[in-house]
Amino acid sequence: MFDIRDGERRLPFDPADRATDAGLVIIGRFVSPWTQRSDCPKNMDEARARGRPAEVQVAPAYREGLTGLERFAAVVVLTFFPAAPRDLIVQCPRHLGEARGVFALRSPARPNPIGLHVARLLSVDAAAGVVRIEGIDALDGTPVIDLKPYRPEADRPGDPAP
Amino acid sequence: MFDIRDGERRLPFDPADRATDAGLVIIGRFVSPWTQRSDCPKNMDEARARGRPAEVQVAPAYREGLTGLERFAAVVVLTFFPAAPRDLIVQCPRHLGEARGVFALRSPARPNPIGLHVARLLSVDAAAGVVRIEGIDALDGTPVIDLKPYRPEADRPGDPAP
Repeated sequence: MFDIRDGERRLPFDPADRATDAGLVIIGRFVSPWTQRSDCPKNMDEARARGRPAEVQVAPAYREGLTGLERFAAVVVLTFFPAAPRDLIVQCPRHLGEARGVFALRSPARPNPIGLHVARLLSVDAAAGVVRIEGIDALDGTPVIDLKPYRPEADRPGDPAP
Repeated sequence: MFDIRDGERRLPFDPADRATDAGLVIIGRFVSPWTQRSDCPKNMDEARARGRPAEVQVAPAYREGLTGLERFAAVVVLTFFPAAPRDLIVQCPRHLGEARGVFALRSPARPNPIGLHVARLLSVDAAAGVVRIEGIDALDGTPVIDLKPYRPEADRPGDPAP
């Protein structure tokens, strides 16, 4: 088990042991410049600032699913972090210095360790299963579970009522 | 099985039968004004335009995870559609009239039927497990698998290079 910090709280069960509500297939992997956790950008803004393109490599069985993605300017990639602890319901990230609930954090340690990455598309080669993007905040080899076209009109929240 | 339309293509296997790469827990449900598929908005822009608030109801075990979410202006909700067919790799949605790969569509029918919903936060009651949002493009009772704070600086793609 992982150590926990002052103020952190664990669930009385491990969600991994109850994770039978739904199952996932891995449809591809990230090819990322980052192989060490210490080098890896912590979020997409930092990844963009570093200016190192990355790729999603889609498994052969799923490559037909990329047809038409090239017409979009950006993509949403969903990943799964198989090694993340899933029971840390309240966490104290070092950069915050205070306790916060997991649903108010972007930590990969969460009941369903799914990562969300929005990136500008550089190119799509459906036949080769290669989707090039502007940068990535995930380690090389991270499992990918979904790609979706980014739609600015849907994927930005509405403005507050006046 | 579902009928398929001209131009649509199925995988030679059903991803649901191989969905053992990772497992999910349901952490809550949508409380939505929409109970019939024919009424339900097709995307978040349409949901916003209809102006009917909705809620995420988080299960008791996971409510501590909401602590601190109230400081954000918007939230990302991930859902899982248990009834969606998972093997339609190329689809012909009626509104498009042409075939497109599933990763270039926002259809709930996909190898991992996860939905992405970005919404302005109206209120958070962590103790009661209630997260009120501006609107939703999902049916009442839809299973929720994750909530994340929306971070505009990370969750919008970068601008194209000049």
